[in-house]
Amino acid sequence: MECFKGLDKANLVELQESLLVKLKEYQGMGLNLNMARGKPCKEQVDLSNGLIDGTIDFSIKSDYRNYGVLDGIDEAKAVFKDTLNVSENELVLGGNSSLNMMYDVIIKAIVLGNVDSEKPWCKLDTIKFLCPVPGYDRHFSICEEFGIEMINIPTDENGPDMDLVEELIANDASIKGMWCVPKYSNPTGITYSDEVVTRLATMKTAAKDFRILWDNAYTVHHLGAEADKLKDILESCKEAGNANRVFMFSSTSKMTFPGAGVAMLGTSAQNAEFIRKQMAIQTIGSNKVNQLMHAKFLPSIEAITEHMHKHSAIIGPKFDKVDEILNENLAGLNIASWKKPNGGYFISLEVLDGCAKEVVALCKSCGVTLTKAGATFPYGKDPKDSNIRIAPTFPPLDELETAINILAVCVQIAALNKIL
Amino acid sequence: MECFKGLDKANLVELQESLLVKLKEYQGMGLNLNMARGKPCKEQVDLSNGLIDGTIDFSIKSDYRNYGVLDGIDEAKAVFKDTLNVSENELVLGGNSSLNMMYDVIIKAIVLGNVDSEKPWCKLDTIKFLCPVPGYDRHFSICEEFGIEMINIPTDENGPDMDLVEELIANDASIKGMWCVPKYSNPTGITYSDEVVTRLATMKTAAKDFRILWDNAYTVHHLGAEADKLKDILESCKEAGNANRVFMFSSTSKMTFPGAGVAMLGTSAQNAEFIRKQMAIQTIGSNKVNQLMHAKFLPSIEAITEHMHKHSAIIGPKFDKVDEILNENLAGLNIASWKKPNGGYFISLEVLDGCAKEVVALCKSCGVTLTKAGATFPYGKDPKDSNIRIAPTFPPLDELETAINILAVCVQIAALNKIL
Repeated sequence: MECFKGLDKANLVELQESLLVKLKEYQGMGLNLNMARGKPCKEQVDLSNGLIDGTIDFSIKSDYRNYGVLDGIDEAKAVFKDTLNVSENELVLGGNSSLNMMYDVIIKAIVLGNVDSEKPWCKLDTIKFLCPVPGYDRHFSICEEFGIEMINIPTDENGPDMDLVEELIANDASIKGMWCVPKYSNPTGITYSDEVVTRLATMKTAAKDFRILWDNAYTVHHLGAEADKLKDILESCKEAGNANRVFMFSSTSKMTFPGAGVAMLGTSAQNAEFIRKQMAIQTIGSNKVNQLMHAKFLPSIEAITEHMHKHSAIIGPKFDKVDEILNENLAGLNIASWKKPNGGYFISLEVLDGCAKEVVALCKSCGVTLTKAGATFPYGKDPKDSNIRIAPTFPPLDELETAINILAVCVQIAALNKIL
Repeated sequence: MECFKGLDKANLVELQESLLVKLKEYQGMGLNLNMARGKPCKEQVDLSNGLIDGTIDFSIKSDYRNYGVLDGIDEAKAVFKDTLNVSENELVLGGNSSLNMMYDVIIKAIVLGNVDSEKPWCKLDTIKFLCPVPGYDRHFSICEEFGIEMINIPTDENGPDMDLVEELIANDASIKGMWCVPKYSNPTGITYSDEVVTRLATMKTAAKDFRILWDNAYTVHHLGAEADKLKDILESCKEAGNANRVFMFSSTSKMTFPGAGVAMLGTSAQNAEFIRKQMAIQTIGSNKVNQLMHAKFLPSIEAITEHMHKHSAIIGPKFDKVDEILNENLAGLNIASWKKPNGGYFISLEVLDGCAKEVVALCKSCGVTLTKAGATFPYGKDPKDSNIRIAPTFPPLDELETAINILAVCVQIAALNKIL
């Protein structure tokens, strides 16, 4: 497709010159805007001050201030089971970090194996994970830390390329895991289609202890009126006779206080029991006072839904603004594509091949920090150097507006540098 | 030494009969007393209600309600560095469980090795740990989970038998670790002598990545006026050129709310940096809101000392009572020995060889639950079947009195069963 349609070479050079003038202006403004991380803004965090303003009633039948209770207090399980759509015996509550729960699941499989393993993964020469791309850098960092070989799986608006996944997984027993952010995916914002979920649940795997790490971080994190619906993968796995295939994760980090919430893991009853046995060796249990605070503050799935509406009201306009500015500046030029998501924390921007690093560097020169180019791919290597992750939630709206205008200029400059 | 001195066989049989009558009475009382665990009592837990009664001022320069800060907030580090007597760069704060930090140190050494490892421990045929006995069952459970071979090391009032330790450690490169509870030890209550600490710090080790796991759980947990003084092992290790040898652990679990506090790890700056790098892959950091609550509630080491005096005022009389009843009933009989500790959570009772299981079972028949016999040894096997751990903190004083009177009867019955 033709870029900058209708412009001849002279026009393009003229455009380039005017954009460079704009760039210089931006560079001189002494800006310091950060859009690198999917971090809630202060107004969002303020929504949960009820946790610490002294209004929580800590009286309860059991004394949660003392030792006891390994995998979560009843009051918190009663709420969060509905977040992952599991029963209590399929649920394990953790500490403050679902990432830590994922890390634990993997490192324990390496040292101890999982429920269906013939031997611990550390006894194998090679362990491989499938990684839908672009994806979440922290997932990939865990694999890299443990020397787990990562295989890129292209994704589209329905999720990962299932033809490729099925072929690889059926023939290579060293593929032990697959990362998925199935809803409002990080960073593309897409939600896996029912067909993709079904195929993930039913596919034949060469390794019988293969596991899907289903990071459902954004399950209740809708934006605007239309919420995506994600098919229940645990249910699908059970129907297919593969109940142990999936570990589902979520947390309250982007509901209440990031990093001071409650993490959760939902899986088959057999997996959950296996995890509890290992947990009993590892810890006396997670912070129950914090669990109780959360169960009192968010006493039901309805309360969570209502609470998340308040988040949406704050960050929805930020996503609208990004989409609006990108449309104004880049629509129809065939040099960039993006999709406004129905939820989650990111907008994924595809620029011309070979231009992502340059765009991020140009933005940086103006004081706008974006997620490092390549970060959304295993080993930090975007093979096409085309993906940029925009995280619009943290900056105030006016700063965001400036940052995205700068980004739009930089995208055009990089494209022109490539073309001319 | 003669048991039940001065009694002939007829006297002993008579005593046995009268004790069995008492036992029967106790068995008929329908008691349900639990002394199995080192658990603070309700009055102790109440001491820290200031954490949750709405009086904590959460305002602070940095927004600890949001993401950021990997290894502990400055305010909490400033307090807890003094608990372990380290500098900030030698300190890593964790989640709510120091046991979990120990588990992590070991499982990561297995998969990734530590700072001085030539290869990860999982690449070795055998890993061994030295285990001073009697010791803490949860330490031993971690080793058992990972197939780490445990070697019993006898202890006396000065700590582990250092002649044996030095001999083993100098000649066996598969010995990679050693568990120590150096102060008010679990369960013996002893504190390691200066000489033992020095020898641990200076001894030649065949494995250059050998580590001491120094569980200083009871460092500020004095009872009564006389506090034991423990020599600084990190300092001693540094002086000996073995700075990386020791990981020191502690937590606020028995200062504030058990299982809802702040865990800490102190070690060499190089080890700490290595741990931080691994943590950065594992988590976005621990619960900073909880860290801030603790730093506000216990703002200095002096505040901690004062707070711990209140604990001592509650549980000190319980330790006195146990000692008093044991003295009244067992002193001079040569069938049991114990030591009233200057701190910590336990009294270790040595009964006649082969009698511990029987005593625990007899107590159980009266509704008194003690820590399982053998639990203080690796694999749950007390080679002499003689050690019983008494945990007097949780029951109210009157229940404790009943339970220890029952225990004293059961100790005598088991001894008589052996002798007669």
